[in-house]
Formats: sequence, C-alpha cells, structure tokens
Amino acid sequence: MSEPLKVGIAGLGTVGIGVIKILTQNADIIEQRAGRKIEVVAVSARSKSKDRGIDLGAYDWVDNTADIATHDNVDVVVELIGGSEGTAADLVRSSLDNARHVVTANKALIAHHGFELAQKAENNGVCLMYEAAVAGGIPVIKTIREGLAANKFRAVYGILNGTCNYILSVMRESGRDFYDVLKDAQKFGYAEADPAFDIEGVDAAHKLCILTSIAFGVKPDFDAIKVQGIAQINSTDIAYATEFGYRIKLLGVARKIEDKIMQVVEPCLVPIDSPMGIIEDVYNAVYVEGDFVETPLMTGKGAGERPTASSVVADIIDIARGVSVPTFGVPANSLKDAKWIDIGETNARYYLRLAVIDKPGVVADISAILKDQEISIEGMVQRGHDPGQCVPIVLTLHNARHVNMLRAVSIIKDLDACKEKPCLMRIEEL
Amino acid sequence: MSEPLKVGIAGLGTVGIGVIKILTQNADIIEQRAGRKIEVVAVSARSKSKDRGIDLGAYDWVDNTADIATHDNVDVVVELIGGSEGTAADLVRSSLDNARHVVTANKALIAHHGFELAQKAENNGVCLMYEAAVAGGIPVIKTIREGLAANKFRAVYGILNGTCNYILSVMRESGRDFYDVLKDAQKFGYAEADPAFDIEGVDAAHKLCILTSIAFGVKPDFDAIKVQGIAQINSTDIAYATEFGYRIKLLGVARKIEDKIMQVVEPCLVPIDSPMGIIEDVYNAVYVEGDFVETPLMTGKGAGERPTASSVVADIIDIARGVSVPTFGVPANSLKDAKWIDIGETNARYYLRLAVIDKPGVVADISAILKDQEISIEGMVQRGHDPGQCVPIVLTLHNARHVNMLRAVSIIKDLDACKEKPCLMRIEEL
Repeated sequence: MSEPLKVGIAGLGTVGIGVIKILTQNADIIEQRAGRKIEVVAVSARSKSKDRGIDLGAYDWVDNTADIATHDNVDVVVELIGGSEGTAADLVRSSLDNARHVVTANKALIAHHGFELAQKAENNGVCLMYEAAVAGGIPVIKTIREGLAANKFRAVYGILNGTCNYILSVMRESGRDFYDVLKDAQKFGYAEADPAFDIEGVDAAHKLCILTSIAFGVKPDFDAIKVQGIAQINSTDIAYATEFGYRIKLLGVARKIEDKIMQVVEPCLVPIDSPMGIIEDVYNAVYVEGDFVETPLMTGKGAGERPTASSVVADIIDIARGVSVPTFGVPANSLKDAKWIDIGETNARYYLRLAVIDKPGVVADISAILKDQEISIEGMVQRGHDPGQCVPIVLTLHNARHVNMLRAVSIIKDLDACKEKPCLMRIEEL
Repeated sequence: MSEPLKVGIAGLGTVGIGVIKILTQNADIIEQRAGRKIEVVAVSARSKSKDRGIDLGAYDWVDNTADIATHDNVDVVVELIGGSEGTAADLVRSSLDNARHVVTANKALIAHHGFELAQKAENNGVCLMYEAAVAGGIPVIKTIREGLAANKFRAVYGILNGTCNYILSVMRESGRDFYDVLKDAQKFGYAEADPAFDIEGVDAAHKLCILTSIAFGVKPDFDAIKVQGIAQINSTDIAYATEFGYRIKLLGVARKIEDKIMQVVEPCLVPIDSPMGIIEDVYNAVYVEGDFVETPLMTGKGAGERPTASSVVADIIDIARGVSVPTFGVPANSLKDAKWIDIGETNARYYLRLAVIDKPGVVADISAILKDQEISIEGMVQRGHDPGQCVPIVLTLHNARHVNMLRAVSIIKDLDACKEKPCLMRIEEL
C-alpha cells in the first residue's frame, strides 16, 4: 500500500463539508478503491468560528487560504471557493505552480481560464480535475473525455442548470408565472438569493463552455457563447408549448457544422416525449453525438451537497490511483482556437409569441413582414377574440435564417398594435 | 510523444472490424487523446479468406489465434471471439500470463472467470478491461468503477439486453405475440439465429454479474443469479400491464439488503413513466443508487458494431494513457465472497395472470389459496364472460413473500379449472 494522499480543502460551504463527510464515512471503501488512504490534512475558509455541523479539530486550520498552495503536507488542493477571479483563481494558479494537483468544482474559473490553467498543470506535471463543475454528481467529464474518447463528436448538449429546469417544471405544473415560482425556488433552496447567474443562463454557459472544449478539442471561450435566460418566458408560453406538443427547456447546445462550432444557451422548445423533454425538476441531462457511439445520455441530480461532493472525491480517487488524463482530453498546446459560427447564419424552426391589439389587419401586417424576410408560417393560434384589447398570438415558423428572424421580430415589435416585447424561441427536434 | 501502443485483435466479426474502422478513421484524434499512436499490428480469426469489407493486408495475419498472446510485437490483446470457455478463455489467460494487457467484450468470460482473470492481471502487472461487455457504447463500467468511486452503492439495475427490450417494445406497439416478433427481430438482425442467450436472460445475467461485482466489491458469481427469460410473456400480459399503468421490462437487479445481496434477472412490471419504463426498442439503461450521488442514469444503444467498438477502443486509449484501475475497482484479493439472499425470503408486489375455465367458484378457490399463503389481492380483472370457456384472469397482489407466492401459484396451477401455466411477474416501483 502506498503513502496516504494528503488533501487540503479551501472553502467549507455545503460542498466542502460534503467532501469531508464522504472521505470520513466511506473511508474504508475509498481506501480500497484508491489503493491508499486519502487524508484531509488542512482546511481553510473565511470564518473559523462558524458552526458547520462537523468537527474540524483534526485538520490544520490555515488562516490565509493562499497558504494551502504551499502547505508542506498537501498533495492535492481542493478549491471550493468559487468565482472566476480573486481568491479561487489565485489559489489554483499558485497550487499548480507549486506542483500540487488541483480538484475544483469551479465552472466559472475553468470556463474563463481553463486553457491557461491546463498549460500550468501540464508544465508542472500535475492534474487539474473538475468533474463536479458540470452536472454535479453525473460523471459527464470523465464519460466524454475517457469513456467516449474513441469518437469524433458532432454535438454535445443538455439541460445544465437545475434551478432553471425546476422553475420551468413548476411553472408548467402549476400555471404560475416566472417570478412567483422563482420566489418559491429561493425559499426551498433551489435558487440563490441572487439568482442572476442561474436564470440568465450564465451558469449553464460556463458548463457548456467546458463540454465544448472537451468534445471538440478547442480552447474554452466563454465569450463566444450566445446566452439567453428564461425570465421572459410566461405561463402563456408554457401553455402553448404544451398544446403544440413541446416542453420549454433551457438548453446548452454545442454543434459542429463543417469546420465551425455553434455554441448557444437559450430556452428552446423540445418535443414532450424526447430525451430532453422528459427531464424535469432539478435534474440535469447531457447528451452527446459521437460518430461511433451514436447518442448516449446521462441524467441525474445536477447539484446539491452530496452529488457534487461525490464528483469531487471521484477526482481525488483518480489522483490517488495515479490516473492522469490531459485537462481537456488532449495536451493543452493541441487545443485549437475554434472557428465559431455566426448564429445569425444558422437555420432553425421558431416559436414566436406576440401580444397585439385585436383589430382587423394586424395578422396581415405580421404575415407580410414575415414573408418579406422569407419566413413561412407553419401554424398560428389566436385564442379568444376581444376587439380593441391586447391578445396573445402564437406562431410556429418553418426553418428560417436566424438573422432574418431577428429582423422580422424587430420590425413587428415596432408595430403600433404590438404591445409587449415578442418572445422568440428555437424549436429543437432533439 | 511515447512509442506507439501495439494491438493484436483476435476475432474479426462485426465488433472486430468496427475496432479497426475506428482506429483507422479516427487515428488523428485518438493519437492526440492517447498521447501516442495506437497501431493494429496483428489479427487472427477463423477464416483468412472471408471478405470482411476492409483491407487487412497491412496487419500480420496470425494463423493460430493462441499465438497472439506471445506475438513479439503485441502490447494489448483484444479478444473479440466470445464464449466463456475454449479459444477465448485460453487466449485471455495466456495473454495475461505473458504480461500483455487484455481488452475484451466477452461478458460470459468475465462473469464466469472474472475473479481468476483479475488475479492474473494483477500478478502480471497488466490491465484487464471490458467496458464493451456491458451496455455496448455506454461507459457504465468506467462510470461505476471510477466516476462514482466515492460512493457506497445500495443498488445497480437496468435494462441490459437490447434484443429483449426490442421484442417487448414491438409486442406492445403491435399487439403481436412473442414468437412472431422474435422471428422479425432475427430477420432484422436484432436477434441471433440461436436467440437462447438473449431471450432466456443469460446475456443480461452475465452483465448484471459484472455490475454486481464492481458495485459491491464481491467476486463475480454467475450461478448465484436467479434468471428468467421473456418467452412466457404474451400479448395479454402486455395489454393488461399497460392498462394498469406499467411496462414489462427484462430487468437485471442487484440490491444490497443489510449485509446480503439480491441478484435477479427477470421480466418485471415498471411504471410507464418511470426511468426504466420509458426505455424502448434496442436501448439499454443502467441505474445506480449511491449513498452520495443518489440515482444517476445512463442510456444508449446497448449493442451494435459501432457503439461496442467505441467502448473497446476507449479501453485501448486508457491503456495507452497509462490509466490503470483494478479490474473490479478494488484489488482482486479484496473481492469478497458475497452472501446472497435467498430469493424466497424477499418481498415484492406481484402480477399474476391465469387462464381458467369461466365457471362459478373459481375466483373463490383462487382467493382462498392466496389467503392461505397470506397474500392480499390488490386488484383483479376478468374481462369478458364466457361460461365454460377458458378466460384470462389478471391479479395484482400486495407485498408478499416470494416463497409464499410460489407456493400459491403451484397450488393454483393444479386446480382443474386452471388451463395454462400461470404467468407471475414482480412489480418494481423503480
């Protein structure tokens, strides 16, 4: 049996405490599987006095978090502070520079600085692991980077944010509106006090950015992602989507089209009984299209103390076992600058909901604008007839160029009869 | 860049040819990911002259398959012959003894001889890899053995045989009977000419045996599995199951109950909209219950040349990368002899279909027999009334001890009014 692997944990929020719980409760089986003991030797967090429900007395408390990187006894630095800059980023850089392995759940950090950090890890002969950064307990990083490593990938996509999926599921089941459900989600702990990263799609985009890099061998490039959140979706959209046979899901989609890559996070309509359509509540799902494996799917809880900690500890076990795979599946210097597709040039079917004054000629005006942009109407529904009042009109549109679609929406929006910002969503037949 | 990794392939059926295709078509990306070239240097199969649709001229043809194990140039022996004994078993043993890594898709071999082979691999310092043996292209072995290695598992279960799932799906959609659909499945290549291993549950049991070993750290023990196939299921069962809100699926289930393990492969009723209920056609699904990760699920095509070859090559890439994990996740000598549960002592809800003569008193007799065995009836349906003729009666039964259930069925079967072998299935609320 080899020497124990010694771990320092920076950040003692729910995931950090979860990691300590697993390493303690499952110590016997983990030692057997890892081939050696895994010992927490040092911990660091903002407040030493805070009651975290477990006894931290056995671990060396490090007052200055940065010192974990140079702690004599630490082989692996586990970074669970979060954020793409500041303490977390400094600690990870310094740990790698000091030839310590790093395990992190920090999706923002990897999405923004993954390439630089992968180079550092390689130059120093250590591992940078981040299974917990995407889809919580579901080992999607390992699956794509190792289990499916024989494949060229055509696409990777999924439901990557449990908070949004929970809100959309409850909106559909209850008929309630977005902000109302969001408040509940915050009360039940499914959404942060500041929910912006989740509901604006930024969290999902961080995750997609990482998946894109591994699947296609390109440098993570967060700024290349087109991101749209779910706040503009109302109960009318949910009801009409159901009527048309769809669910609304916040999807992250990366797809290779010839030698370019499309990368987008936005709410989409997907068929009710499709693999994405059936994923409800706080569940995540990740799908890949490989040239040999076809389309495997992984689902599970995408967040939470225990599933996330499970992934962090799996990474630590890999390090203990001596498993070493390049950060993004290929040597850092082989990662390419992707050619990103101009989203305007892509084609899709669309769902468009308008709020217009119910008066003769409005539908004719809308139809003419769409025709001018070479967009064909597949279906149109105007329920209720209330002359002079504002009513919803919902259209589904045949395959159209995105730039034409945006132009049409922008003209329609300026019609006198149009009373609200139109709601436009892609229809994905995934 | 390291030396190329040199591969010898024994067995050139569809999977073997698929492996050569991937290694050729994706050579560039595989070299990048593996950190070195992967070269096929030698091949062997029964017939040298057979046209396999690809040029094998570049590879050293080995007439005597056993010689691959001692081929000067071979680092990794890929065994794709199949079968738990004979040529395949001899080759794998000899390859490990000669310190060659082994990659195989042979579930029967691992299920029957996994413990002995794992010891051989460890004693010789080489890897024995078998991702392709379970669930084709879905990397379930890696996921359980590595991605979820931090967890103690409570259960692992799934739909492990695509042929059976295809037959059951088509029976339901078409209302046709078992043997009729089986014939089609053979015509379309979804079932073998000799379908016994698939339809009798043996193939699924081989796979479950492997999953059980990894999840619970026990020696694979094929003979400890209770196995039942799907041939006794008829269109009446499918129709009633649907009416009650269930699908019939051939499930492999391994579950830890206190310090014992239950291991069973048999057709079960699962709720229509449950994770197992929605898996149709040739798809496979594997579910695990871990103490921290909760319940992640993996689905995908469980067979076929290309998905299976994807898993074989993933194993080869792992070897090229120097990834080395114990065969069943823990050192072979740590694998325990499991304590298996006597299935008779387990409890479950049941579905029971009888074919009885429609005459007064029959239902009273059946009810009395069930009562004597302390089994409560949850529901009973007898559609159609046809005095003196044979009619189906379907019952669902509250939680009952299996041994009592078998006793009741055996007494009912001997009633004069009972005209066919009763069909008994577990109801699993998974």
